[in-house]
Amino acid sequence: MRMLDVQNIQDLAMGAAVLGTGGGGDPYIGMLMAVQAVREYGPIQLCTLDEIADDSLVVSSAMMGAPTVIVEKLPKGDEAIQAFNALQSYFGLRIDYTMPIEAGGLNSTTPLTVAARLHIPVVDCDGMGRAFPEIPMVTHTLYGISATPFAIADERGNSAILNTIDNHWTETFARTLTVDMGSTAHIACYAAGGKRLKEAAVPGSLSYAEQIGRTIRETQAAHADVVEAVREVTHGFLIFRGKVADVQRRTVAGFARGEAVLAGSDAHANRQMRIQFQNEHLVAQLDDQIVVSVPDLIAILDAEKGEPITTEGLRYGYRVVVLGIPCHAKWRTPEGLKLVGPRYFGYDIDYVPVEQRYAAMQHN
Amino acid sequence: MRMLDVQNIQDLAMGAAVLGTGGGGDPYIGMLMAVQAVREYGPIQLCTLDEIADDSLVVSSAMMGAPTVIVEKLPKGDEAIQAFNALQSYFGLRIDYTMPIEAGGLNSTTPLTVAARLHIPVVDCDGMGRAFPEIPMVTHTLYGISATPFAIADERGNSAILNTIDNHWTETFARTLTVDMGSTAHIACYAAGGKRLKEAAVPGSLSYAEQIGRTIRETQAAHADVVEAVREVTHGFLIFRGKVADVQRRTVAGFARGEAVLAGSDAHANRQMRIQFQNEHLVAQLDDQIVVSVPDLIAILDAEKGEPITTEGLRYGYRVVVLGIPCHAKWRTPEGLKLVGPRYFGYDIDYVPVEQRYAAMQHN
Repeated sequence: MRMLDVQNIQDLAMGAAVLGTGGGGDPYIGMLMAVQAVREYGPIQLCTLDEIADDSLVVSSAMMGAPTVIVEKLPKGDEAIQAFNALQSYFGLRIDYTMPIEAGGLNSTTPLTVAARLHIPVVDCDGMGRAFPEIPMVTHTLYGISATPFAIADERGNSAILNTIDNHWTETFARTLTVDMGSTAHIACYAAGGKRLKEAAVPGSLSYAEQIGRTIRETQAAHADVVEAVREVTHGFLIFRGKVADVQRRTVAGFARGEAVLAGSDAHANRQMRIQFQNEHLVAQLDDQIVVSVPDLIAILDAEKGEPITTEGLRYGYRVVVLGIPCHAKWRTPEGLKLVGPRYFGYDIDYVPVEQRYAAMQHN
Repeated sequence: MRMLDVQNIQDLAMGAAVLGTGGGGDPYIGMLMAVQAVREYGPIQLCTLDEIADDSLVVSSAMMGAPTVIVEKLPKGDEAIQAFNALQSYFGLRIDYTMPIEAGGLNSTTPLTVAARLHIPVVDCDGMGRAFPEIPMVTHTLYGISATPFAIADERGNSAILNTIDNHWTETFARTLTVDMGSTAHIACYAAGGKRLKEAAVPGSLSYAEQIGRTIRETQAAHADVVEAVREVTHGFLIFRGKVADVQRRTVAGFARGEAVLAGSDAHANRQMRIQFQNEHLVAQLDDQIVVSVPDLIAILDAEKGEPITTEGLRYGYRVVVLGIPCHAKWRTPEGLKLVGPRYFGYDIDYVPVEQRYAAMQHN
């Protein structure tokens, strides 16, 4: 157990934007909210998975919706508590811990706000080791943990508790409710006992995000190569260097969907990269060759500062570097790939780990 | 208190189709389900509003969705129980009585199935004295009774509990969930204590529906004028006689919307009636003159048998009679008309009671 201070949270939010792979909402907003909560309610306890009791009750807190809308409709801070408390009342039990559903983007810090306000610790883990756009896309699903009872709340005071036969029905119902609620909502879900969570979760993801963020900050201070430092700490691969040529974005059915087109420079001069996204980056294609696909991570960094850029932040002319980062091993199983592999997202391709694709790239 | 037998339920379902004003779902299906439940679980207790204790807990049971879909997707019978039990668990209290949200159509008998299976009595009242298409359109709303906590369930085993800041938000969320669930769902809602219900509900509506149905049956048996008998028992007005010339129907956002065009005969020869509906008949227009509007009832009866015809049952060439029937006095207040008057449904006209419109017709 350790306490998270303001610096830790700032690092965590910065690193989470790398793991957010373009989506997961603007972590800057989540960071501001968490820092505000710490200033108001005191520091936040972070426990490792090993430290929590087998019979403790852990519930994930998150925001749901299109990141494009979230940046224009800032949460008041009460909504997350309302969803969490709705679930607590439903159980009639005290929830012992909260945790992030995803370690990428805004939702890495959403549970910190809940933890500070309710004076409960956060567990250092998540259900993805990155960000994904849909509710069932968590390692919990692979271990048979239900998303429901699932609480969803808006900023007006409306809420709902869903109970569904599987996590895909939760996604269907929660997505339409989110659209009705104005395309953003707060959720509390994936209640699990400590024992099952130790098997099912991705351990250490908040510390990992914090480590990435700290690396960026310290490397910037040392005026060293930030992109290279991020590549090293994430065990990633530098797959493209260039500038933003075009970004197409639509908000469809509660998602931000679109494509970024990058024009190559340096070693990639005269080459083009296309990155398609549904909230998060899904597939990166170099000319006609796929070089990274889900569930591996595709991170776009500012070429100079080494800081991650979300799809909403991409602007014409930005000089960027693209990293391919291996996903957590739980996603590389047949069950994992069925849930979050390229075919689930409608791409008629097999998943090939980024390290293999990268090696093949070097031979071309 | 009295017991409802199979004959009572058949009469009730027939009368409820008159009060259903074209919508409310096919009462034949509800009747079959209720009769089946009585045969399986024994007769159903019907209590008057006066007979229930002030501190008893009463919850409405109903189906929600487009009647056009309900007739093609028969309920299994468990869904209504699932919604009801979801609400009972939520309260952690035993629900003492159930009641219909509307006395028109299928939903007049939906609570009978719940009552038979759970061995609880039904209260002889409803929230409309007829059928209406949307959740907030009940006299409960006029008395500040919340639709929530609102349980909704489908036939797969999915359910949700909504808690909203007003009954219009309940309608929004429940309607999109109903569409997700396949355009029909079962609901349990408008929980109220006996004391408040005595003020807020329309009393005696199930007995009234039964009386209308019995009148139809007995008048048919006596080979007398059924249409005239229905007109008399409902204190209605015969506003049109003719045959169905055209019916336009679309299922939009979980509703059956459209228009029936009738060509006049006898006293109405060479005249045309247009009846617009959103599940229920909303406005009846004779040539260019409005002759009945919500909240008054517009019932289409078979010209010979005197039996009510729903909008799904209307076919080209059917010989029909249209009755205009005064609504319950609670709807004729400014608050009532704001909730269910013609302007709510998008018609730029003032409400004029059917008896006044009918008197004006006689002078033309």
